[in-house]
Amino acid sequence: MLLLAVVALLGPALCAQHASSLPLMPLPAHLSEGNGKLLLNGGFSVVAEGYADPRVAEGRERFLNKLWRETGIPFQTGAPDSSATMVIKTAGPSQQVEQLGEDESYHLAVTAAHVELTAANALGVLHGLQTFLQLVHITPEGFAVPVVTIDDQPRFPWRGLMIDVGRHFMPLTVIKRNLDGMEAVKLNVFHWHLSDDQGFRIESKQFPLLQEKGSNGHYYTQDEVREVIAYARMRGIRVVPEFDMPCHATSWFAGYPELASGSGPYQPITKWGIFDPAMDPTRESTFQFLDKFLGEMTALFPDPYFHIGGDECDGKEWDANPRVKQFMREHNIKDNAALQSYFSGRVEKLVAGHNKIMEGWDEVLQPDTPRDVVVQSWRGPKALAAAARQGNRALLSNGYYIDLNQPASEHYLVDPLLGEGATLDAQQRARVLGGEATMWSEFVTEENIDSRIWPRTAAIAERLWSPEEVRDVDSMYRRMALVSEKLNDDGLEHNSFTLAMLQRMSGNANPEALEVLAAVVQPPKGYAREELKQYTVFSPLNELVDAVAPESETARRFNQLATMVVAGKATGEQWQEVRTWLELWRDNDLKLAPSLKDSTLTQQLAPLSRSLSEVASVGLKALDDLKLHRTMSAAVRDQNLELLKAAGKPKAVLVDKIVPSVELLVRASGS
Amino acid sequence: MLLLAVVALLGPALCAQHASSLPLMPLPAHLSEGNGKLLLNGGFSVVAEGYADPRVAEGRERFLNKLWRETGIPFQTGAPDSSATMVIKTAGPSQQVEQLGEDESYHLAVTAAHVELTAANALGVLHGLQTFLQLVHITPEGFAVPVVTIDDQPRFPWRGLMIDVGRHFMPLTVIKRNLDGMEAVKLNVFHWHLSDDQGFRIESKQFPLLQEKGSNGHYYTQDEVREVIAYARMRGIRVVPEFDMPCHATSWFAGYPELASGSGPYQPITKWGIFDPAMDPTRESTFQFLDKFLGEMTALFPDPYFHIGGDECDGKEWDANPRVKQFMREHNIKDNAALQSYFSGRVEKLVAGHNKIMEGWDEVLQPDTPRDVVVQSWRGPKALAAAARQGNRALLSNGYYIDLNQPASEHYLVDPLLGEGATLDAQQRARVLGGEATMWSEFVTEENIDSRIWPRTAAIAERLWSPEEVRDVDSMYRRMALVSEKLNDDGLEHNSFTLAMLQRMSGNANPEALEVLAAVVQPPKGYAREELKQYTVFSPLNELVDAVAPESETARRFNQLATMVVAGKATGEQWQEVRTWLELWRDNDLKLAPSLKDSTLTQQLAPLSRSLSEVASVGLKALDDLKLHRTMSAAVRDQNLELLKAAGKPKAVLVDKIVPSVELLVRASGS
Repeated sequence: MLLLAVVALLGPALCAQHASSLPLMPLPAHLSEGNGKLLLNGGFSVVAEGYADPRVAEGRERFLNKLWRETGIPFQTGAPDSSATMVIKTAGPSQQVEQLGEDESYHLAVTAAHVELTAANALGVLHGLQTFLQLVHITPEGFAVPVVTIDDQPRFPWRGLMIDVGRHFMPLTVIKRNLDGMEAVKLNVFHWHLSDDQGFRIESKQFPLLQEKGSNGHYYTQDEVREVIAYARMRGIRVVPEFDMPCHATSWFAGYPELASGSGPYQPITKWGIFDPAMDPTRESTFQFLDKFLGEMTALFPDPYFHIGGDECDGKEWDANPRVKQFMREHNIKDNAALQSYFSGRVEKLVAGHNKIMEGWDEVLQPDTPRDVVVQSWRGPKALAAAARQGNRALLSNGYYIDLNQPASEHYLVDPLLGEGATLDAQQRARVLGGEATMWSEFVTEENIDSRIWPRTAAIAERLWSPEEVRDVDSMYRRMALVSEKLNDDGLEHNSFTLAMLQRMSGNANPEALEVLAAVVQPPKGYAREELKQYTVFSPLNELVDAVAPESETARRFNQLATMVVAGKATGEQWQEVRTWLELWRDNDLKLAPSLKDSTLTQQLAPLSRSLSEVASVGLKALDDLKLHRTMSAAVRDQNLELLKAAGKPKAVLVDKIVPSVELLVRASGS
Repeated sequence: MLLLAVVALLGPALCAQHASSLPLMPLPAHLSEGNGKLLLNGGFSVVAEGYADPRVAEGRERFLNKLWRETGIPFQTGAPDSSATMVIKTAGPSQQVEQLGEDESYHLAVTAAHVELTAANALGVLHGLQTFLQLVHITPEGFAVPVVTIDDQPRFPWRGLMIDVGRHFMPLTVIKRNLDGMEAVKLNVFHWHLSDDQGFRIESKQFPLLQEKGSNGHYYTQDEVREVIAYARMRGIRVVPEFDMPCHATSWFAGYPELASGSGPYQPITKWGIFDPAMDPTRESTFQFLDKFLGEMTALFPDPYFHIGGDECDGKEWDANPRVKQFMREHNIKDNAALQSYFSGRVEKLVAGHNKIMEGWDEVLQPDTPRDVVVQSWRGPKALAAAARQGNRALLSNGYYIDLNQPASEHYLVDPLLGEGATLDAQQRARVLGGEATMWSEFVTEENIDSRIWPRTAAIAERLWSPEEVRDVDSMYRRMALVSEKLNDDGLEHNSFTLAMLQRMSGNANPEALEVLAAVVQPPKGYAREELKQYTVFSPLNELVDAVAPESETARRFNQLATMVVAGKATGEQWQEVRTWLELWRDNDLKLAPSLKDSTLTQQLAPLSRSLSEVASVGLKALDDLKLHRTMSAAVRDQNLELLKAAGKPKAVLVDKIVPSVELLVRASGS
């Protein structure tokens, strides 16, 4: 129900993208635009030729269904005749289990009358179909796709999204709709973080106490896991499971305390943070347990790669256990890092014994780590480069932590092969496989997780797919907005969740004034939220901070306008837009404040709402000064900056993102 | 993204309902309100005592999950301890297959610290849980339920919703979310209209050509049907299948032309209307086929009732077939009605032979129709009463045709036992089982079907559940608005579909001006749509007429305001509201018109948009006159009424619902 008509002045028109900037994300490797367009009507039909891959057949059905969603036109889903509008040609089979580096290229040629999509195998076909769907837009003549020729393939072979279901469990529907979103932006690895201190989320038939004592009833059955793997495969997505060990594993110990280095008893942790419990690397029984467990899980997950976590051991349980200290002395293990290295080395042999390649976070990398182990870097580009130099393959997640409420532009400009990565030689660079967006789940439930993943992950997907030189942030934001709308058709709730949550917290079906506030505030960046308030696994995530997008689009666009004004480049219309926005915010507290007290969830917003109003008033005065070429006096300016400084501090765990733009205006009007 | 802040002035506040008017729909039979409230917090827990029914156990889990959706508070779903906040007491078992007239009563007592829900069986428990969920609302202290004691049971035992999946197939997800909606308003019969001229929608293993030739690939497998039946049972809902015969059956004949009275060949019909093909009642092979088919289907559907349709035979294929004429002469069958009666009688015996009770539309009722046959009346109260007088049981659907775009108030005031029904004696009245809302699907797809069913079907549900004297239309609308919001939590899309469709048709993510127009127009009532434009099963239903609600809430409320103004009872604020709305509409065309030409789907809206603007201008002039106690001259008045008459005619298959209110103003200002 956002917002007022003024939004339209800034809003993206889905049909506004033409020739020079097609609504594609990720941008293809090679694209050549023609003239004219292909009109879609009820007679549009698709035939699949060449190698008969079930993924192509099902992909065609899903394609037609999504095309219906995009147009409302019921296309014929039955067997098409030979005069089909669109011909899919699949040259050959794909691997039974998708392989890292398998050919994903495709060729898509759209003329005014015909579409040809050719690919070496089903993977390329699936990608090409998604490209076509992104190109569909409404025109005066009907829904259409522009005439275009595309030759495309990815820059990196490993383009992932990790979802942590250990901290907050996510139902199957959430996983599936996010796999749909991944397919839409050509991500190809779903990294399923299945266990952590707070929860163990998968059924083990060998060790049923893992889920019985470790999940609070929220876990996936093995049938459900198979369902997800099949669903992902149909979309050209690999599924890599992660079982974090030896730390981040308290939930295992609830059922099997003998695995731990402490004396127990253990319960799944109900707080967030880093905790002491760690597996006991000194007992053979630990490795016997793990071998059996890994045998069960490696049989369930067909992907050749298997993630064993390995991050963030504080070593305190080891320090406190005399048997561990004794073991270290006997084996000449000098410190806890070396002990973990010993543990990882043993686990690596077990993983290899089950014919899988081990993957782990930075910490698994030690001088003697086998060369085939894949390192996922949460620490940063240096750790990534170090792994590649040492001969290991690696992928980057540092910079792609989508749980930290960073703007899309920040993620977008992180490149695995720039900065430290640029110092690598060709051979080393080839070991950088790509990257993964990581969705840690301390502060998400099934209600708002989509909004933390989308649309920003589309920007990361572009970084990992498109040529290195594709780095225009404005273009990225413009295209991301269009792709974000299309993701609605996949059932993703990143655009719809805010209104639903605002209605609930206010008890008001039309909470317009609350929407005005919600549109310009953000959760604090990084880990600041935990410093502002105490949270546990039982904390309701139903407040305004949970209901707003991690990046305020309104604030971002207002900042563009304010920057234009300050630079003396704004048109008359843009001046007026800035004024209209500021007046809206100035007057909003008057409308909102009276109702805030009606709900326990909105009461706390009173200072934030009042502050927004004050900030806007300051902004309006500065705007007047700028307009009339008056110089704000130093005293007034300092007073205003003081007010803005206070206004910039989090309130109700939220940051007012208009403040920096108003500060721009104030500083300009004082000089 | 509706609309402007002015909406808030008229919008319902979810928390505004207190004491005298609880947000319940249907209203309970007996309710007594206390003081205070029960606060819901993370410690809220529920225990089920007494008879251990799996429907209660699963109902409790679903209840806690929906309570989470309503509050965002993660309640404990595991086994509760003995000090639970809420105690459910189930006295005994329910029937293995739900029976018509089975006890559905419950007792719900909420105090500030405790909740007790008692019922004879699982059905009452399920109803009581839904009542509790409707009572949840936000307060300054937190989410709460008011202190209240409720003793409740339904007025009628048969409270249904029919969905026609023959004309437009509906995926399983649509069926399931609508079953959730039915549970929320205590409807207890899902009538599944599974076949019609345009489609045969269920897998037959005995006669696979039915679905292979008759469904265009869109049908339910028997496993899916079992899934729906189990899903419905968990929600206290019976599933009654309908296979329409001997007419509305062309889709059967595509695979089995020998069933028909004509010479064929047949294809599923691709238009809407009444068609000639009819089963051949003269051949024994027809009844042998039906017996085998009914054997298969009666085994699949456990409900004791089985609907064989029987409506709308035009008899033309019979008239044209000499063998049929010959048969009629030989058997002394005087006309086609009698021939259909013969057919229905034969089918009734087959149905009875499979231990089911036959149900059919009005036409199945003949003097010799067995007394246990249930008659569903599409013709009206007289036909209903006639059936009851004749000794048959009957239910009403006439008046509950939710596909005809009538306002909720019209459906609401239709009562099976008023009017003609009031002339029945007690024994006859007892044969009136209730009624069913009927969702015929010529003009719905999975995108907009929810909006045709909800929230208006909640008003029909109240008619069928609540005491006869519950008839306050204003109260109904107030409560229906609140229930409508809660239905979002069941995944129903009746509130969210409009924006999605407007975005698609305009290619604009923020189509505010189009939303303003959409909020005040409606599809024409009754069958007028088909007279305005030609439609087939291939017609895209993606235009504005498909995207707007069947009843404009904005227009309904504006009409209330205009009525107040005309009656001289409006407050200053209400005068201002009327003005604000009219100014919004007057100015809207200027904003909307330029973008309409960008899309093939909005081009046709230009006259409608312009007309709304003109109507609003007329309204504003009339309002000025009324305000200043000026009398509009007869000439001006007539000119304005002429304009309104033209504006009242459908444009782009849509009716401007502001016109009658402006006419009120004009007539008042001219007198």
